[in-house]
Amino acid sequence: MTANESQRFPVEALRDFCAQVFLHFGVPEADATLASEVLATADLRGIDSHGVARLHTYFDMLTLGRINPKPTIRIVRESPSTATVDGDNGLGLVVGPKANEIAMAKAAEAGSGWVSVSNSNHYGIAGYYVLKALERDLIGWAMTNSTKLVAPLWGAERMLGTNPIAIAFPGLEEPPIVIDLATSACAYGKIEIAKRRNEKIPRGWAIDRDGRDTEDPTAMMDGGAMLPLGSVRDTGGHKGYCLAAMVDVLCCVLSGANWGPFAPPFALRQEIPARSVGKGIGHFFGALRIDAFLDPRDFKRQIDDWIRTFRKTKPIPGTPGVLIPGDPEREAERERATSGIPLLRPVVEELLDISRRTGISLSA
Amino acid sequence: MTANESQRFPVEALRDFCAQVFLHFGVPEADATLASEVLATADLRGIDSHGVARLHTYFDMLTLGRINPKPTIRIVRESPSTATVDGDNGLGLVVGPKANEIAMAKAAEAGSGWVSVSNSNHYGIAGYYVLKALERDLIGWAMTNSTKLVAPLWGAERMLGTNPIAIAFPGLEEPPIVIDLATSACAYGKIEIAKRRNEKIPRGWAIDRDGRDTEDPTAMMDGGAMLPLGSVRDTGGHKGYCLAAMVDVLCCVLSGANWGPFAPPFALRQEIPARSVGKGIGHFFGALRIDAFLDPRDFKRQIDDWIRTFRKTKPIPGTPGVLIPGDPEREAERERATSGIPLLRPVVEELLDISRRTGISLSA
Repeated sequence: MTANESQRFPVEALRDFCAQVFLHFGVPEADATLASEVLATADLRGIDSHGVARLHTYFDMLTLGRINPKPTIRIVRESPSTATVDGDNGLGLVVGPKANEIAMAKAAEAGSGWVSVSNSNHYGIAGYYVLKALERDLIGWAMTNSTKLVAPLWGAERMLGTNPIAIAFPGLEEPPIVIDLATSACAYGKIEIAKRRNEKIPRGWAIDRDGRDTEDPTAMMDGGAMLPLGSVRDTGGHKGYCLAAMVDVLCCVLSGANWGPFAPPFALRQEIPARSVGKGIGHFFGALRIDAFLDPRDFKRQIDDWIRTFRKTKPIPGTPGVLIPGDPEREAERERATSGIPLLRPVVEELLDISRRTGISLSA
Repeated sequence: MTANESQRFPVEALRDFCAQVFLHFGVPEADATLASEVLATADLRGIDSHGVARLHTYFDMLTLGRINPKPTIRIVRESPSTATVDGDNGLGLVVGPKANEIAMAKAAEAGSGWVSVSNSNHYGIAGYYVLKALERDLIGWAMTNSTKLVAPLWGAERMLGTNPIAIAFPGLEEPPIVIDLATSACAYGKIEIAKRRNEKIPRGWAIDRDGRDTEDPTAMMDGGAMLPLGSVRDTGGHKGYCLAAMVDVLCCVLSGANWGPFAPPFALRQEIPARSVGKGIGHFFGALRIDAFLDPRDFKRQIDDWIRTFRKTKPIPGTPGVLIPGDPEREAERERATSGIPLLRPVVEELLDISRRTGISLSA
């Protein structure tokens, strides 16, 4: 098995392993279950960078006591439709779902619910939260900041995270529209893969440490930066920067978390920011009750029509034609639910390392 | 004076002219004042395509009776923090501000307010609405759909409007962060300008009628389409498509307006959609009360810090360095408030045509 080969694991086995690891650190059982569900959702939906591939980082942070395994998550201010939540430095995988729950509960009462969260950590995929909202006929929104990687337009250094935005809309007979996008031009994982394969990266993804456009993944990783969605001025790089800034303010300034370049690092190897301007990292959750706007059946029927109309768009020759947001993840989920989750060798080795150090067995 | 030369008009003169034109069609005085204020805001802020340059189109629509000058704008469903509004086919420049007012009033009571609007028309610049929210210490959001111009990724035809998103955050000593962006790779106006000047357009802006990348503005205008923010798959074109889809659903499916390719045309020369799936075009407004999350002074102090931190970003050599969202528009406003609004000759001629046909005099 080489580094690029993969081994399949049933999703249940990975979920159980993660839950056991969290329990090992004293995370309460319900929270351990929740956190492992968030990770498993990423693996099932094909977002490999956000699933068990990150478990070793959580393991490191918990080992060093940098994450609180038993947080007291509390509302520090609220109104009928809003709340500010302090995550008490808990796992983002636990703080996130609980804050999202508060947004959904507010929506049940007030028509909508909006929660800004400070003092949290990495919360997994943004898509997880909006899928939970779908279960209650809510339009869910989720955003988070993250460690700096992206340069604002015309800047030559990392100032923002890849700051994702997720939102989902339910269909009636059709599957839901599920949007989950980073506000950077590409995913950091793609640059890592190009480096491992010794390949060039496309123009528009990154700059080097002097702010020059680069096609060399190492030049980005070695003190360079990723570009925002839109890449350069001509093609709207200022717009991706604006979207990342929007996420940064809603998640961090509004909650009292560390914004912009001051987001604390997720992994041990990353540098510690120059100063702290708040607590932990921040998230922002929203929930809109569909029946507060119109009859949910009418809404879903129109979403079905929307989906069918867009699928019929005249395709560009040589492409798969127009997809509906969420199609690729749903496709991955269908396949992986039965065939298991393919893990690359380095990921398997990290899990085996955790297994050795905790005595928790990993079954394939 | 050639087509590319401009003549300056005091903003007050243009505002008064617009108001008189709206009054001429029986628009109530308060509404005419409101509508002309929205247009003047665009001209002041340098968004030339959305100011008096559009007056002749409103004039045409009102002349033909396609827009209702005296709409009864009503709430058709509501909850403490949400409302669905029917604009009764009024001017978007009147329906928009009134629906935005409802969102702000909801926020005053419930912490946040969210309003989806159907049966409206073009509402000017999205930025106008979020500036109004700033006056009340609210974080305002504004979105709208518009006539189809943009292809979804891998599609070879126009299916979505340029569907803008605006949001703003107030500073204490610093001016506010004001974000207002179309979800397309560029503005349609830039393609029109390139055509007029007989210049190429950059790659990533458009495709021709067969879905091929094109640098020819005419190829886009003649049955081609604009590309979404991110342009192509490698650089995140799917993300711009997702953002445009999000705006489309929130503005139209949620309100019962015409979504996607079925948005009614704004100008007379544009084609009538194949079918109608709702009423008019749609908008979506949001307002978040800052003090529902944290102390507004603390928020604004952090925004000041955010702005100063980002201004200090190491610049890319040969660029102006990092701007704060809203800088260019604020700069334009400062200059135009004293020096007047520069109007290109074709725009002046359109205004003179309106003047001739209505008897309302235009003073420079």
